[in-house]
Amino acid sequence: MQIAMIGLGRMGMNMARRLIQGGHQVVVWNRSSDKVAAIVSEGAIGAQTIKEAVQRLTPPRIIWCMLPSGNVTKLILKEVLEAISSDDLVIEGGNSYWKDDLENSKAFVEKGCGYIDAGVSGGVWGLKVGYCTMVGGKDRFVRRAKPIFDTLAPPRGWKHVGPVGSGHFVKMVHNGIEYAMMEAIGEGFDLMRNGPFEKLDLGGIADLWGQGSVVRSWLLELLAIAYERDPDLESIKGFVNDSGEGRWTILNSIEYGISTPVLAQSLFKRFESRQQDVYSNKVLAALRKEFGGHAVRKE
Amino acid sequence: MQIAMIGLGRMGMNMARRLIQGGHQVVVWNRSSDKVAAIVSEGAIGAQTIKEAVQRLTPPRIIWCMLPSGNVTKLILKEVLEAISSDDLVIEGGNSYWKDDLENSKAFVEKGCGYIDAGVSGGVWGLKVGYCTMVGGKDRFVRRAKPIFDTLAPPRGWKHVGPVGSGHFVKMVHNGIEYAMMEAIGEGFDLMRNGPFEKLDLGGIADLWGQGSVVRSWLLELLAIAYERDPDLESIKGFVNDSGEGRWTILNSIEYGISTPVLAQSLFKRFESRQQDVYSNKVLAALRKEFGGHAVRKE
Repeated sequence: MQIAMIGLGRMGMNMARRLIQGGHQVVVWNRSSDKVAAIVSEGAIGAQTIKEAVQRLTPPRIIWCMLPSGNVTKLILKEVLEAISSDDLVIEGGNSYWKDDLENSKAFVEKGCGYIDAGVSGGVWGLKVGYCTMVGGKDRFVRRAKPIFDTLAPPRGWKHVGPVGSGHFVKMVHNGIEYAMMEAIGEGFDLMRNGPFEKLDLGGIADLWGQGSVVRSWLLELLAIAYERDPDLESIKGFVNDSGEGRWTILNSIEYGISTPVLAQSLFKRFESRQQDVYSNKVLAALRKEFGGHAVRKE
Repeated sequence: MQIAMIGLGRMGMNMARRLIQGGHQVVVWNRSSDKVAAIVSEGAIGAQTIKEAVQRLTPPRIIWCMLPSGNVTKLILKEVLEAISSDDLVIEGGNSYWKDDLENSKAFVEKGCGYIDAGVSGGVWGLKVGYCTMVGGKDRFVRRAKPIFDTLAPPRGWKHVGPVGSGHFVKMVHNGIEYAMMEAIGEGFDLMRNGPFEKLDLGGIADLWGQGSVVRSWLLELLAIAYERDPDLESIKGFVNDSGEGRWTILNSIEYGISTPVLAQSLFKRFESRQQDVYSNKVLAALRKEFGGHAVRKE
């Protein structure tokens, strides 16, 4: 079927590719036009403006927005809203906070358009494996977009989980769990790296655990690949960024009064990883000096 | 090849089965004889004493001990030691603490026997899938036992990780990670169960995440099965036991000065799950009453 892909970042570009390879007719728009040119050479139809992208589709249209969450998404959604007609459908596939969907969807509903939020997991492997997709929105619009989700996702890999917002909510929790699974693996490998047995083959163990162990998981497969490339991770600093979902997960835990200590700790470890000299530790060292005269280290 | 399996618990029984199905000649011993009778009917050779089990093998022998860790393992290993000859090999496959291996192996080495510690993961699914096996010990003994490990493990599913003790050490860390992965999943599903969106299809989401998502893992597959059986987990109380490995992991973190907050928290959550009325919470409620006159609940 026809679809417009608005935004050709790391995710949008590969998703457009997967849709083209799946036989769909894909109109693309991106702020910088070099990415448009690249994917046009693979069979996409380029558009210079969002309006043009919309007009190149036959109504009722489907427009997939794959943009940085927050203000960029909000602004571009407004442009899309102006360009589309009633009964057209927008799918907001970015890493947005589900509460933004509750806001952003209103104007679309008022205009008689469809609004679907889609949480998309799979990272750079999605092009090959397919994107696990969590879909929130009204039944009739989800049904209409089914051929798109069928192409993007692996078999059984997309699901209509609930009303508008629920797709991004479930994706948010997915990422909260992801942070903590990663932290669990990180801590365990720290213990193996720096514990009683020297020079354990950590990459080999990550691979081994993929074969029939209780912790077998894709993250361990990825770790085995990383160790194969760099057996002591020398080329990688322990500096870990976060996108928004881990934070929203904890904000939601607080709002709904649900105990998620491991998810919270995993987020906080990331914050800490980004401080050159962890400030709370400086405070501890200062206090130990004050009450016990314990030595402190200087820069 | 020939092997004796000492101990026919949940793990030992199925491992004996898998060895028989793999064409090995398996002599079995168990404290209660009904289990021996059951597996004899499937092709094992029963023995009434450990000594008899050993004598039914042609030297150099391999004896696999699959017993409760701690004292039971220690006692039975002594019996095995008395019954075997120099150059025989014992494989300690229980869920033992790796420091016990350093102790338990001494007498075997003194007698000129081999000692291998094998950490075995896979639970009740191991019979079908194979057991992921982490092996510690001397090269020549590990080589000798290769056909046994090849049969028990799935393809690429066993590894000689280091000297005596390292097999159980790596298995210990595996279980520490397992606890935290489970806790991460538990917390995320709590947020989905009790958060803003009512009646999410949690089993469906667990299954969905198995298809191309970043958190895809065997534990989520198992959770999807659990939800299929009981969609609101009504038949399951939130009471979680622990075997020793989670505790030893944290003891080791402390001994080697390695920060594993998420692994520790996951263990502590299990402890807390077993208190009817969490005592630390009672203390908090008492203090809030004292300083602020806040109401407390009674039994």
